[in-house]
Amino acid sequence: MPEQVLIYSRFPKSQMAEIARRYDLLDGHGKPPIETFTAEQLKPVRALITAGGQPIPGPVLDTLPSLKAIICFGTGYDGVDFSETKARGIAVANSPGANANAVAEIAMGLMLASMRRLIVADRYVRSGGWAKGEPTVLTTMPPGIAGRKVGIYGLGEIGRKIAARCAAFDTEVGYHSRSRHDAPYAYFDNLDALAEWSDILFVAVRAGADTVHKVDAALLKKLGPLGTIVNISRGSVIDQKALVAALQEKTIAGAGLDVYEKEPHAPDILTTLDNVVLSPHIGGQTAEGLVGMQDCVIANLDAFFAGRPLPYPVG
Amino acid sequence: MPEQVLIYSRFPKSQMAEIARRYDLLDGHGKPPIETFTAEQLKPVRALITAGGQPIPGPVLDTLPSLKAIICFGTGYDGVDFSETKARGIAVANSPGANANAVAEIAMGLMLASMRRLIVADRYVRSGGWAKGEPTVLTTMPPGIAGRKVGIYGLGEIGRKIAARCAAFDTEVGYHSRSRHDAPYAYFDNLDALAEWSDILFVAVRAGADTVHKVDAALLKKLGPLGTIVNISRGSVIDQKALVAALQEKTIAGAGLDVYEKEPHAPDILTTLDNVVLSPHIGGQTAEGLVGMQDCVIANLDAFFAGRPLPYPVG
Repeated sequence: MPEQVLIYSRFPKSQMAEIARRYDLLDGHGKPPIETFTAEQLKPVRALITAGGQPIPGPVLDTLPSLKAIICFGTGYDGVDFSETKARGIAVANSPGANANAVAEIAMGLMLASMRRLIVADRYVRSGGWAKGEPTVLTTMPPGIAGRKVGIYGLGEIGRKIAARCAAFDTEVGYHSRSRHDAPYAYFDNLDALAEWSDILFVAVRAGADTVHKVDAALLKKLGPLGTIVNISRGSVIDQKALVAALQEKTIAGAGLDVYEKEPHAPDILTTLDNVVLSPHIGGQTAEGLVGMQDCVIANLDAFFAGRPLPYPVG
Repeated sequence: MPEQVLIYSRFPKSQMAEIARRYDLLDGHGKPPIETFTAEQLKPVRALITAGGQPIPGPVLDTLPSLKAIICFGTGYDGVDFSETKARGIAVANSPGANANAVAEIAMGLMLASMRRLIVADRYVRSGGWAKGEPTVLTTMPPGIAGRKVGIYGLGEIGRKIAARCAAFDTEVGYHSRSRHDAPYAYFDNLDALAEWSDILFVAVRAGADTVHKVDAALLKKLGPLGTIVNISRGSVIDQKALVAALQEKTIAGAGLDVYEKEPHAPDILTTLDNVVLSPHIGGQTAEGLVGMQDCVIANLDAFFAGRPLPYPVG
């Protein structure tokens, strides 16, 4: 009889297929578990899988009296309230680095697609606008990437990979993080100075209570009217209202976003703007990224149910 | 009285603004000049500017009896028939390397956008499909870039820049060109072998009569069902019908195209496919790329009208 594991966030079925071979999954489809299952069904549940960013408040934990392990699918664990988990003796683990290549790749794709306006370009060709010679914003030349100053906010595994890829585009790379790293890039001890210096800013910081709205209206303004921002971390790091306003008013030139304040939802105004590229939090989702994350989740679950220490603990 | 210069191809006005400050431009808007101007007007024209890829056949040259200089805006000059120009004593020049960064950047953008399906992703977010949890092809995991084998067809200035950028994504890079270069990438002495080896193929070769349809159905098949092709060279290098069929039948996974067989026109079927990213030949079009090309064009024209040798002759 396989152990039972609750799926707390909404995941495509394909992402859980490997895990479902080893465990009996109770899929809550992203809703509070008690809406999908009876208290009786939830009572024996000892472990759950979450996307990491989705909040798991105390009242939800109260419906899971046997819970002792929260396993985050991905590197983030900002939805976990450690005061709540510690009080209950719940261990927390993640899937570190397993998807760093995939996330760095989509960050680069969003930056290039935003700066070279590939969404607008693709639509212009498909609509027949090109064939008809219709007026287009594409005739206004954007700055190229080479020679630009690229700022990376957060130089963890993903931030480093973004930095290395950007450097190959003949850019200057700088970064801000809490402390200086052994890395061949300019260090800025505060985010304001990094934004002031940067033409392109990547948000790659590990999100948490201390990073909420670190990128606000004033910071966006520092990027300037030719500036571009890319966020592959968490929606909470950027004041989304301020970002929408900056894009509408052309305070900055463009943005590439894989994450949003309230997922799965991008604000309505954002979806009408041409100077932004939107992806539905698919940063980590490559075949290799998925296998890497599944492997970490399974390793965490196997260890937990065998009574061994979790291989990737956090908190 | 400024010298007169004919604009042979269709260019956005903004691209010619700098040149218009020094020369009196007769803009044919991409049509045969004799449709826009009288024979009398064309008679004294000694120089023209062309996009390089657009054919300038003998009968067109016949309408320009004083023509002695064809200046290509961009690196390509595949539209020029050198047997016709030599017979008439017409010099030909281009704008070498001025836009290599810009083209390499869009090549990378098209590759990433294609592999990570950013057009589909953006549409999924904007349409509200994500918020509603609608089924999407995005739940099928694509391969990541890291670890892939990247083939570059043509290792000129643009090909080298693509190679260097791809290498930073932790890929293996190989190339095919007529001869081996002093470059840290695997050399393939034939295109078939390169395609067989590659997961991702960039077409960066200088186009000409010898490269027409070098990428055909058989070659595309060698890339395999997870394969991706990117073309930033000329549409003529790929058999476009075969490419459309390969994308429809999923013989390959996807494509990113900045160039087409008949510009400004992408085939209707191509514009309905989800596994392709289309841009309207904007590869060289960044602020720096434009200035670089303008500078070359102006240098060529200034030299020509001063009776000096052209600084960037070709043919």
